Amino acid sequence: METVIPKNVIDEYLEKIEVTDLNKASIRQVLACEMNAEKVTGQKFIHFEMGVPGLEPSAVGIAAQKAALDAGVASKYPNIEGTDELRSEASRFVKAFINTDISQGHCHPTCGAMQGTFAAFMLCSQLDPKKDTILYIDPGFPVQKMQAAVLGLKMESFDVADFRAGKLEAKLEGILSKGNICCMIYSNPNNPSWMCLTEDELQTIGRMASKYDTVVIEDLAYLTMDFRREGLGTPFKEPYQVTVSKYTDNYIMMLSGSKIFSYAGERIAVACISDKLYERRFETLQKRYGISRFGACYAYNMLYALSSGVAHSAQCAMAAMLKAASDGAYDFRGEISEYARRTKLIKESLLRNGFHITYDKDLEQNVSDGFFFTFGYKDADGNDMEGGQLLHELLYYGISGIVLSSTGSNRQGLRGTSSNITDDQFPVLEERLRLFNQAHANR
Amino acid sequence: METVIPKNVIDEYLEKIEVTDLNKASIRQVLACEMNAEKVTGQKFIHFEMGVPGLEPSAVGIAAQKAALDAGVASKYPNIEGTDELRSEASRFVKAFINTDISQGHCHPTCGAMQGTFAAFMLCSQLDPKKDTILYIDPGFPVQKMQAAVLGLKMESFDVADFRAGKLEAKLEGILSKGNICCMIYSNPNNPSWMCLTEDELQTIGRMASKYDTVVIEDLAYLTMDFRREGLGTPFKEPYQVTVSKYTDNYIMMLSGSKIFSYAGERIAVACISDKLYERRFETLQKRYGISRFGACYAYNMLYALSSGVAHSAQCAMAAMLKAASDGAYDFRGEISEYARRTKLIKESLLRNGFHITYDKDLEQNVSDGFFFTFGYKDADGNDMEGGQLLHELLYYGISGIVLSSTGSNRQGLRGTSSNITDDQFPVLEERLRLFNQAHANR
Repeated sequence: METVIPKNVIDEYLEKIEVTDLNKASIRQVLACEMNAEKVTGQKFIHFEMGVPGLEPSAVGIAAQKAALDAGVASKYPNIEGTDELRSEASRFVKAFINTDISQGHCHPTCGAMQGTFAAFMLCSQLDPKKDTILYIDPGFPVQKMQAAVLGLKMESFDVADFRAGKLEAKLEGILSKGNICCMIYSNPNNPSWMCLTEDELQTIGRMASKYDTVVIEDLAYLTMDFRREGLGTPFKEPYQVTVSKYTDNYIMMLSGSKIFSYAGERIAVACISDKLYERRFETLQKRYGISRFGACYAYNMLYALSSGVAHSAQCAMAAMLKAASDGAYDFRGEISEYARRTKLIKESLLRNGFHITYDKDLEQNVSDGFFFTFGYKDADGNDMEGGQLLHELLYYGISGIVLSSTGSNRQGLRGTSSNITDDQFPVLEERLRLFNQAHANR
Repeated sequence: METVIPKNVIDEYLEKIEVTDLNKASIRQVLACEMNAEKVTGQKFIHFEMGVPGLEPSAVGIAAQKAALDAGVASKYPNIEGTDELRSEASRFVKAFINTDISQGHCHPTCGAMQGTFAAFMLCSQLDPKKDTILYIDPGFPVQKMQAAVLGLKMESFDVADFRAGKLEAKLEGILSKGNICCMIYSNPNNPSWMCLTEDELQTIGRMASKYDTVVIEDLAYLTMDFRREGLGTPFKEPYQVTVSKYTDNYIMMLSGSKIFSYAGERIAVACISDKLYERRFETLQKRYGISRFGACYAYNMLYALSSGVAHSAQCAMAAMLKAASDGAYDFRGEISEYARRTKLIKESLLRNGFHITYDKDLEQNVSDGFFFTFGYKDADGNDMEGGQLLHELLYYGISGIVLSSTGSNRQGLRGTSSNITDDQFPVLEERLRLFNQAHANR
């Protein structure tokens, strides 16, 4: 049967990089395999795997960053807490698009939300010796689980798709009442499924976090990207991004510049810590570090030890982008709505060729078209093809993705992103999907 | 008695930030105290405390970074391993100035050497359950101890000034033979004392590292800054920076752009891992991560989990600076020799006013004038003033520093840096030292 990439090109490389099961491979490993195949065969892959922004970086950011370099910031250690301007613009942005009040002193830049989350995991796990476990409200971003593995922390998780709306409270209660959860994390919109937790569900999460004194890490990497909601992303106007911060004081919101401003290359995000949590004192921290306040320890111990702060010029870029967005001068949501357009076309192509959308429903509605989508394939007997096998076989057809199992999903399928798919690739995608389907439907 | 800053301005701020003992304060906390005092009194401090480059950032770096931003790298996730150009230039730079061969694949950028060291501590402590302790060859950089504290790792240390030359082997043997040391770390030239370990001493360290299978983390933040050695810093020509890499395969060299290229603001360094160590396989890693090679795990697990790589444009800057240096087109050592000139003048001023150099000797020679120096003060009875007290009282005179106790030193005194002292400040320094001496010599 004809494949786009000779099978041995894929198989030999996977062996070389010690990948025997794609369920356990990282995105970077899958990518390395594709890069090699592209080099060997000259065939360009349909890169569904890596959520790299496919848009130009924010022009506002570039201009500000270059101006900062001209002003000489490259030789100056950035303050651990972040530049004054970045912190005050982060606080203002949170008010403008989320309608939540956080003092500017409580917003700290991080080297991507990755570092912000790493620091939060470390800190939260050190507050109370009984609380040693992170709860992942899955499906989620696999590397966040690797962070716990690297730190030797315990993990618990569940696929929230099976516990939406009225079912969520009992599920959370069952887990949190054990008393060992130091923090819980989710992204909203959800990576990978693009489900969006509702106000009701966030209220439940917030209430449970307060009741069981657990920190909620709310990853807002895809802020305003529920494209079903018209008018989102207008500064200081309803509707606002939904958020757990309305319902508990125990939260950290991660605001990354990677996707909303297409600034992933510069590793810049802001960790926005609830005013009350920031100022809360812990004896455990006092004992270990001689500093008792949660937020001070987050900045002066965690962030300091991790990298002595964040690239100075990138902070200036981030401050300028946040400011322009809050000023209404930079319509970031308009720019990124391009992802929804592409995802709609890709989903149509998948459906035409025997594939289905794995997470298709968000309660009663269809999920929004956005940055990520999920897809699977049923074999001739009507059974879902196992995710790792599906990815392995799609690689032969020059199509990539990541296996949903790595996201904590209970479903068989892959996560894809439309972010780097260009219009000229749609016919290529259609043809490769057709070949795949032809080869598999006939078996 | 007349002081430059009213005592209550200092004392009240220290209380506010929960600092009761300056021996336990971080640099950032001391700095925050000074900033406040400057704001309140309008008096500018003599900032001996923070090793911020006082030179302009490398022009080569700025030009390259701006060009990279123009080329659109800000939207592209950097490879975890680093850009090809950065890795190959790092390998070439190591050959040019250290005369050590490391494959380019084994050089990975990090968000400052801080992140590189954090990643190394994590990884080294996970190789063998029996090896759970980090050995600090002190005096050293206090935040590297905070990194272990944050990670919950055990520490051992000794002041190498008491175990130079022939005494070093027995000291190391005594510690390493216990079998619990996973890695050891030092900087050369030494921060803070500016002592320089000799070829003989490095050979001892290397031999011991091989014998007891321990990783050496060699922090080369001040590469070529032994200004007593003429001709250092000429690419591909003797003399070369001395290094442990000649004497063991168990090493990681940390090459930071912060001081040698005055690029501290952008948090960019390269971790250069020995070819043999990089490729070495560990069953412990295989079990925990499904990856067995030391170097692959360093990049794909540690660095990935810490920040998903390093700011893309800063990598381009670093690559360009390394290249220009190796090409002989950028005399970085000539630029930073300015620090030695300043340090010489500061030491003279200290000596004129009753102070002494705490670490004055490097075996038989005087220590080099460089980025850091150490100083102390004897009270009327001829006893060394306790370091924390000395700093506290110097703050009243608008002079700062960090207490040597925080560096693992056995001696009473402070670390200072000349990096930000401008020529117009020398008379101010002289006058403040005079006032201090007058107040204390009379007691």
